[in-house]
Amino acid sequence: MTNVLVPFTTGVEEIEMVAVVDLLRRADVMVCMASLDGQPVTGRSGICINADAALADVAGQGWDMVVLPGGLPNAHLLRDDANVKAVVQRLRAERKSIAAICAAPTALAAYGITENRRVTSYPACQPEMEALQPSSVYVDEAVVEDEFLITSRGPGTAIAFALRLIARLCGEQQVAEIKVSIVA
Amino acid sequence: MTNVLVPFTTGVEEIEMVAVVDLLRRADVMVCMASLDGQPVTGRSGICINADAALADVAGQGWDMVVLPGGLPNAHLLRDDANVKAVVQRLRAERKSIAAICAAPTALAAYGITENRRVTSYPACQPEMEALQPSSVYVDEAVVEDEFLITSRGPGTAIAFALRLIARLCGEQQVAEIKVSIVA
Repeated sequence: MTNVLVPFTTGVEEIEMVAVVDLLRRADVMVCMASLDGQPVTGRSGICINADAALADVAGQGWDMVVLPGGLPNAHLLRDDANVKAVVQRLRAERKSIAAICAAPTALAAYGITENRRVTSYPACQPEMEALQPSSVYVDEAVVEDEFLITSRGPGTAIAFALRLIARLCGEQQVAEIKVSIVA
Repeated sequence: MTNVLVPFTTGVEEIEMVAVVDLLRRADVMVCMASLDGQPVTGRSGICINADAALADVAGQGWDMVVLPGGLPNAHLLRDDANVKAVVQRLRAERKSIAAICAAPTALAAYGITENRRVTSYPACQPEMEALQPSSVYVDEAVVEDEFLITSRGPGTAIAFALRLIARLCGEQQVAEIKVSIVA
């Protein structure tokens, strides 16, 4: 079974969170929604979503991919969390996939993960992305892939982002089937 | 303030639910997520979302629009709920807007709301839509509008659907601003 970790906390962008989890689960990927304290999370639009686990309790497990959703302050709180940083750096060392959308790619930039990589983010975050990692190449595309790294821009690109994650984990045939099932 | 009621229950399609609520709230519309019993709801992909209210406690309030999200058994449970039927029929009598996506347009068809109307739904529901209301005209488009009625097809059309609801409630300028803010 393929296992994906999605850390999230207060102010998460609900569409970004839900599109990733919903579509990966449709592809039979095991997804763990891990809030920083294990408690339910209220997103930036006031929608309260339960967590499957507390991040500290599951961060050390084996993960094929970690996905950071956006929304504020979620993206900043994830960036500053020691467990998020540790699991991202461990997956990098293990050559696993690392993904982030909207404001969350700034956390990856802060960790050094985007150095020399093609990246995107929420448009307003471009100056921060470039200041944190001047060697990264910022691209104005809905989803940008560079080896282990997948980044995307906002709620309007969340479904395209989730489909690229499925392509990487499960292949293009699975993407084609999911697209039919969701009328995309 | 514009007020929108979104009834939901077990098996709701999470992207459809969250896209509507998130984007309407970005447009400063007051949205009430009303579960049938007021308790949190676990959707078709296992994501548990809190409710703002129990439907019975708020159905009698003044609403500018009711939106039925899809997913099963959610759409069937909504169809068979007396409060959902009553609020839809009252809004119809008040000439307010009525919207549904995915499997939920079948509830509107069962209530007679789609009679003589252009409609769409999740593709697999087309035979049921036509059997329930032979006078309706089924259209293969992402979002179909006919006077008071707005219908749509699935998770992949949920953002387009939510944007058409915003257009109706808040105007095209608001849609343009939301599209920029979500990178759509």
